[in-house]
Parts: sequence; structure tokens; C-alpha cells
Amino acid sequence: MKKSIGPETLLYPTPVLVVGSYDAAGRANAMTAAWGGVACSKPPCVCISLRAATASHGNIMARRAFTISLPSREQAAAADYFGIVSGRKVDKFAATGLTATPAELVDAPYVAEFPLAIECELLEVHELGLHTQFIGLVKDVKVDESCLDEKGRPDVRKLDPIAFAIPSSYFALGDLLGPAYSIGKVFSEAADG
Amino acid sequence: MKKSIGPETLLYPTPVLVVGSYDAAGRANAMTAAWGGVACSKPPCVCISLRAATASHGNIMARRAFTISLPSREQAAAADYFGIVSGRKVDKFAATGLTATPAELVDAPYVAEFPLAIECELLEVHELGLHTQFIGLVKDVKVDESCLDEKGRPDVRKLDPIAFAIPSSYFALGDLLGPAYSIGKVFSEAADG
Repeated sequence: MKKSIGPETLLYPTPVLVVGSYDAAGRANAMTAAWGGVACSKPPCVCISLRAATASHGNIMARRAFTISLPSREQAAAADYFGIVSGRKVDKFAATGLTATPAELVDAPYVAEFPLAIECELLEVHELGLHTQFIGLVKDVKVDESCLDEKGRPDVRKLDPIAFAIPSSYFALGDLLGPAYSIGKVFSEAADG
Repeated sequence: MKKSIGPETLLYPTPVLVVGSYDAAGRANAMTAAWGGVACSKPPCVCISLRAATASHGNIMARRAFTISLPSREQAAAADYFGIVSGRKVDKFAATGLTATPAELVDAPYVAEFPLAIECELLEVHELGLHTQFIGLVKDVKVDESCLDEKGRPDVRKLDPIAFAIPSSYFALGDLLGPAYSIGKVFSEAADG
């Protein structure tokens, strides 16, 4: 039996997206967002939603670029810190001891120590209410060589990404449940049988 | 050292969103999407990206409504099946033995057996390329009573949601890494000290 709990943003899991940007003076900032994901395959686009009150929002509107750095399990506390304090008040890279590396193809920095970085050019801006949704055109993805498999593809177990669960929990990925486009075939076979 | 792997949609993890809709004849369909997430807190909005070629895309454009049902670990194979076959060819609910329940507030069905359902009214349509992004205004969330905690709030461990990892793996959530807005404070304390 289901219970109605009203109109809320309840969706599990969400990613932990550390959004990198430069301010007007060229200072690197990073903030953590859980509202976002993949938006389109061709052209490759991602989306992030930020409140207009954040420093990152102004930075992205001005520079028309951002990055997304994905933390691994050991970096959960740093990612959380990036989401707690404002870049207007604190140099978050200095506080965490992490390194802001300029992206190669867009005007934004990424977190060097995080295993995967997505370089994005700002493509569209959607004002939805409290949050503005930025659509980023992916210009490049950079991955730690230690997180690639023997074919040079990212290995999710080596990346060891973290997930966010509303309202306030970080999780590692756990049991592998099976391959996509495959485990569902059991129902096709049943229908054919 | 990071290696450039080019402009791809690589972002971990993504959710497993089973999108429910009705076709012109009122037949229930469901398809699985991994491109989407939360888009705005106020008003509460979610986003899903679907290819124009899918039956669900046409259904949502016509009915201006959709649902998102979130599967739990035991339902991974059914969710995968919903993403493999087309609703134009198959009654996916009949094939999986799952139940299409009409949403209470919007013109779309949800998967009764999945523990959480989000009822959405179509708010905006963004043509991004191969994928169309639908912004859904959340009208209600319905949760299995067995997945609520003692305060009547959803319990993520009871929901036991699944995550998708590009290119093709489903995972359960694993180790709890800590509370958000909390574990990052270690860096504030270090800065203060």
C-alpha cells in the first residue's frame, strides 16, 4: 500500500557533482550539487541545477563554462565541504588542500585529485524557480589513468564514485546487480516461451 | 595523471528511472531512462531525457504528463526489460507481470509494485539533439508504507534503490559514507584551528 507524501523532490540516487568555475578575478571555486545528470547523448550534454544565490551561478553565467569533477569514496568529506561553505567567503581549494587545475578546453577549473573531470561549455540556461538549470556541452572528459581498464575505458569500480540519497546521506556503490540490456531478457524469453 | 577520452556522457552514478505514460488508446507503457534527475527544489521539478523515436516521447508530448517509478534491487531485471523493448510492440506490463496503476493527479500510470512513484505534469520541453529533455513538475510522490521510517519519511535502505553505471551496469547502494552537510566540517575546523 502506498502513502502520498506530497510534491517533493524525492529521487534516488543522485550523483555528487563538484562544479568548478572561475570568478571575475580568476579565482577558482567549486561547489557540490546533487541536482543534475546526463541530458543528451548527441551532442553530449549534462545538466546541473544551481540556486542564483550561489557564487558558482554568477561565475558560470559570466564565463559561460564549468567543469564537473566526480569524487571517489575517500573524497566524500571534501565533496561535502565544497557544498557547505560559500566560495565568496573561503578559498575552498586552500581549505581542503586540493588543486584547481585549469581545464584544457573551457574557461573553468577542475579538481585535480578527483578521478574524473568533465569540461563543459555553457549551452543553455533554464530558469525553473529556486534553481537555474545549466545545460553543459561536454567538450572533453579526463580520467585518471589508474581508473582505466585494459581497453582504456573508465572502470567504475576503480573510479569508486559516490551517490547522494535525499535528504542527507552519501553512499558508495555496492553489489553489482547485473549487466544492462541483458538481465531483462528473461521476460522476453518468458513471453516467447 | 589524467588521460583525455574525448567528449562523452560519462557521469557516475545515474538513477534508474522507469517512466510511465499512456498512449493515444490509453494503453499503459513504461520505459527505463538513465538520463535525468532532480532539476529544481521550488517548485519541485525533475527532468528526464528521451529520444524522439521512443513511444514514451510521443505519449508524454500528447498527454502532457508522466510518472517516474523507482525500482528496488529485486526489480532490476524488470527495470532493464522496460528499457530493452518498445511499448509499440509489446505490453511490457503483461510481459513482466507488473501492474500499471493510474496516477492520482496526472494522466499517466505508474508501476504499482515499485516502492516509489513520482507523479509529474509536463512543464517544459527542451530539444537538445538526440534527446528531448522533459521537465516535470512534481505533483505528488507515493511511497510504499513498508519503506517509510518511524517518522513517516522514506528510508533509503528500505527503498533499496538501484543505480546505473555507464556503459551498462546496475548496482545497489553500498557502504554509508556519512551524513551530508556534516562530514565536510572537518575542513572548516582545520581552517579555524
